[in-house]
Amino acid sequence: MNDLRHMRHALALARRGLGNVWPNPAVGCVLVRDGVIVGRGWTQPGGRPHAEVRALMQAGEAARGATAYVTLEPCAHHGKTPPCAEALIRAGVSRVVSALTDPDPRVAGRGHAMLREAGITVTEDVCEAEARELQRGFLNRIQLGRPMLTLKLAVSFDGRIATASGESQWITGPDSRRHVHALRLAHDAVMVGGETARTDRPGLNVRGFGAVRQPVRVVVSSRPLPELPPEGAEHGPLWQVSGAPEGFMAELGARGLTRIFCEGGGVLAASLLRAGLVDQLIGYSAGVVLGGDARSGIGALALDHLADAPRFHLAETRRIGPDLMHRWLRD
Amino acid sequence: MNDLRHMRHALALARRGLGNVWPNPAVGCVLVRDGVIVGRGWTQPGGRPHAEVRALMQAGEAARGATAYVTLEPCAHHGKTPPCAEALIRAGVSRVVSALTDPDPRVAGRGHAMLREAGITVTEDVCEAEARELQRGFLNRIQLGRPMLTLKLAVSFDGRIATASGESQWITGPDSRRHVHALRLAHDAVMVGGETARTDRPGLNVRGFGAVRQPVRVVVSSRPLPELPPEGAEHGPLWQVSGAPEGFMAELGARGLTRIFCEGGGVLAASLLRAGLVDQLIGYSAGVVLGGDARSGIGALALDHLADAPRFHLAETRRIGPDLMHRWLRD
Repeated sequence: MNDLRHMRHALALARRGLGNVWPNPAVGCVLVRDGVIVGRGWTQPGGRPHAEVRALMQAGEAARGATAYVTLEPCAHHGKTPPCAEALIRAGVSRVVSALTDPDPRVAGRGHAMLREAGITVTEDVCEAEARELQRGFLNRIQLGRPMLTLKLAVSFDGRIATASGESQWITGPDSRRHVHALRLAHDAVMVGGETARTDRPGLNVRGFGAVRQPVRVVVSSRPLPELPPEGAEHGPLWQVSGAPEGFMAELGARGLTRIFCEGGGVLAASLLRAGLVDQLIGYSAGVVLGGDARSGIGALALDHLADAPRFHLAETRRIGPDLMHRWLRD
Repeated sequence: MNDLRHMRHALALARRGLGNVWPNPAVGCVLVRDGVIVGRGWTQPGGRPHAEVRALMQAGEAARGATAYVTLEPCAHHGKTPPCAEALIRAGVSRVVSALTDPDPRVAGRGHAMLREAGITVTEDVCEAEARELQRGFLNRIQLGRPMLTLKLAVSFDGRIATASGESQWITGPDSRRHVHALRLAHDAVMVGGETARTDRPGLNVRGFGAVRQPVRVVVSSRPLPELPPEGAEHGPLWQVSGAPEGFMAELGARGLTRIFCEGGGVLAASLLRAGLVDQLIGYSAGVVLGGDARSGIGALALDHLADAPRFHLAETRRIGPDLMHRWLRD
């Protein structure tokens, strides 16, 4: 009961790192001694320090005999810093509860083993499903060699993104647009197709959340890009990729990205869906009808059979201002 | 506080009559004496007996000194039966709480006046907004001369009703289909366009709910209809209408219909939307993507400006099996 509660707390802390820690995983850690929380930590911008180190720093001597709740197996390898498993042992924690075994081949159970060898009680797989969803980007990069991809669509009741004449500002309301900026913030990169980059000259940045680590701007195009704002405090790095979706997604994974937020256009969205590379769909539906002659958010899929269509299951719905947000995960 | 609670109870009873009582309104009545419910009633199939009569019958002598909660002003005119206001007076109720003044010119406040003249305390407009939504069909018929119209669409995440090749069975799941039958049951008539009638030969009936009053089948077409099942226990009357939407909707109102459930196709849906005749939109969205080359549920609207698009506000969302149901009401 308390294990679940403390792990959920650690998961909530981990979430703060999403979009901010690539190529590292976003991890959360809570230290509890005699029912009292003595330390909390999450992966810091850029991936260092790790969550455990932050929590131990906060707890100081109070970590001795405490239970550590971690959303991912503590690392066991010497990277830029000594392994977290070692730090937990040195601090004298008596029990470690973890949500997920780290699939990174340099860890892969060695963190848990190292803790057990030091006499620490280890409980694994607590809130495993939630942790797996939270870490989808990192897991995809390690296990599939590509980032997780979210495809976003802001549409009319009948699934259209603009009138036949091209008018699209604004179908959804300001609350939904702010929600989109929050989602950009929780992804490592924002991606659009070349046509969208040329036509809309989109900012592809996070606005309205103060000074933040801006996401990488990824434009998928084999043609020259239009002039876009230079990298700086307001805009992340600009990366151009092209070719088959499998190819550029592997390239982006190799460059360290774990979470990509794709905002169209229709041709890019269709090619990602056809390739089975969309992990999450997020729709913002507005209470407006644009009709069958209006513009689609997703290009042609050339499906002959319903059975071949990409399928997702409903994960969340939320009313956002006047709009309906619905989030779906790949089956 | 108790007034609200009892009126909500009466509204829930009223709801049982929807689809079943046209051309009459679906009304609910609860009789409460000393905090105890002594009678409950709702408009019976076909519109008679009225809710108040049923509740009074159930209460018998216990109605004396009771408070009557009615979702619509009691009628004051002699129709096929004596007016309900008279029945309430004769039964000796001491207070009447009503949700809505009946806009029928034969009533229009006269019911409330008759009660007050008899020394009964009358409280009006309790849960007025809920009652107004519940009675939308009856109010439309009386005030606008046409029935209320619900437009239903079962679509993919991207708003499509069939693949490019025409495959549409099944985008949404069996739970959504059952929900559609429940909605048909709560409407007076089910409407489709001629093309849909010819291509799909739809049943347009309620299945899976036992023996019920089947809705009227309305087909909008100026051409001869295909052979459809004859009227009987399994199928309601078959009415053919044609011409401009304003015209046939007025005709259907004049024939007594209060609530119409339109299930397409796209051309009919578009013409109803363009004419501003859609009061309620119900979408069932499935977690499948069909692409921009798939078939639209709504035909061309020829909108030049977003500002001209028909607008609705979100009234309800519900997860139905794997699908997302979302209900919108006209602004």
